[in-house]
Amino acid sequence: MPPDSTNPNLVLVRHGQSQWNLENRFTGWIDVDLSERGQAEARSAGRQIHEAGIEFDAAWTSLLQRAIHTLWIILDEIDAPWLDVRRDWRLNERHYGALQGLNKAETAAEHGDEQVHIWRRSYDIPPPALDENHPEHPRRDRRYRHIPTTDLPATESLKLTLERVMPCWQEEIVPALLDGQRLLIAAHGNSIRAIVKHLESISDEEITGLNVPTGMPLAYTLDSDLNVLDRRYLAGEEAAAEAAAAVAAQGRATP
Amino acid sequence: MPPDSTNPNLVLVRHGQSQWNLENRFTGWIDVDLSERGQAEARSAGRQIHEAGIEFDAAWTSLLQRAIHTLWIILDEIDAPWLDVRRDWRLNERHYGALQGLNKAETAAEHGDEQVHIWRRSYDIPPPALDENHPEHPRRDRRYRHIPTTDLPATESLKLTLERVMPCWQEEIVPALLDGQRLLIAAHGNSIRAIVKHLESISDEEITGLNVPTGMPLAYTLDSDLNVLDRRYLAGEEAAAEAAAAVAAQGRATP
Repeated sequence: MPPDSTNPNLVLVRHGQSQWNLENRFTGWIDVDLSERGQAEARSAGRQIHEAGIEFDAAWTSLLQRAIHTLWIILDEIDAPWLDVRRDWRLNERHYGALQGLNKAETAAEHGDEQVHIWRRSYDIPPPALDENHPEHPRRDRRYRHIPTTDLPATESLKLTLERVMPCWQEEIVPALLDGQRLLIAAHGNSIRAIVKHLESISDEEITGLNVPTGMPLAYTLDSDLNVLDRRYLAGEEAAAEAAAAVAAQGRATP
Repeated sequence: MPPDSTNPNLVLVRHGQSQWNLENRFTGWIDVDLSERGQAEARSAGRQIHEAGIEFDAAWTSLLQRAIHTLWIILDEIDAPWLDVRRDWRLNERHYGALQGLNKAETAAEHGDEQVHIWRRSYDIPPPALDENHPEHPRRDRRYRHIPTTDLPATESLKLTLERVMPCWQEEIVPALLDGQRLLIAAHGNSIRAIVKHLESISDEEITGLNVPTGMPLAYTLDSDLNVLDRRYLAGEEAAAEAAAAVAAQGRATP
């Protein structure tokens, strides 16, 4: 099917504030829920989509409730709770290894500011891995029971995150887009970075500095080869830039 | 896989009270949401499942928000919003034709008490059909865009409802059960009747008198040929019977 010029093919939404964003702790694959503010951010995202008159044929999300609940809230706001939803573990947030659960002060005290900065801002250096006997290791979590344990991360750099997201993109999302479906993806800072990096051919160096603000739908119009014809925040570039700056200033970039 | 003796293979939940149940209007395929009481019934269903320690591998629901929201509330109560969910239009409520939107008094005034009783209680007599140009005809609703219009009902008897539910059962749900999956289905009075009739070999005459109470999970343990080994309401038979009687007394059987 030819792309619909009035309806973007793909809208990405990063989930809103979670309880641990609020406490400034590394979250990663820990299944923390949205805060009240995060719920409000999701409602705002839904209203922006509704007001833009955008329709979808299917939605994707991760296996973490802060993204799933963001999607549910949006589906209610756009009067489409009936939309087909696929959950895929490969859209999860970056796994933050042994840092998960620590706040920034604790992490800095244990590992030093410089090292923490490297883990947070480098492209390919993962934090220390979670021990495979740790109770929070994904192999112990029933939701990942169908995933070969060798595929389940115990820590990830941004690079490793991208390498895990891309097979989901290629195997699941690209075929749906090529079929003419219009898709909504509710996911996480780093899984969304992976998709944006791929779509916009962003370099390894640049991508670590790119922050998609929370609750701000990012809409892509793609041609039939999935080249980007148009890319815009529904709230406007200025509002999105302000939101991204505010997120950065509050230290809410902690994934 | 052999059936797990401690975990039922299949749990059916009828959605709780909707806004129109409250107003005693024929709802059918009109997409009315849960009332506050309906939400509380869904939470109660979720708590019963959680307390029974039942786990699922996948969930099914209809394309109507009162069933979808019931499922979402249950998934939150059992800490499994990550569960794979399939929506299938064939699990929708019975289509009530031209009666949809009318309350019982209006219907009786227009068609007479006796005729209304026949439509409500007979197995195979459908109410007058909705005109295919009616704004509420399913062919005008985007959520059914993938369904051949000749398959979309404009009215249904209970018999026609069952004939529409059964292909979903055979094509989607039976293979999952035979694969050893433990399933949760959140649906409607008459789509659940279809499944119960099939599983328990209930006669055409008897099924019209069977009322599954709202928000009361009905758990089946099935053998490897899907014969019923055990069938129980998680709340107990007595509580379920009382709830069914209360529903009948309030006229809340209106589908």
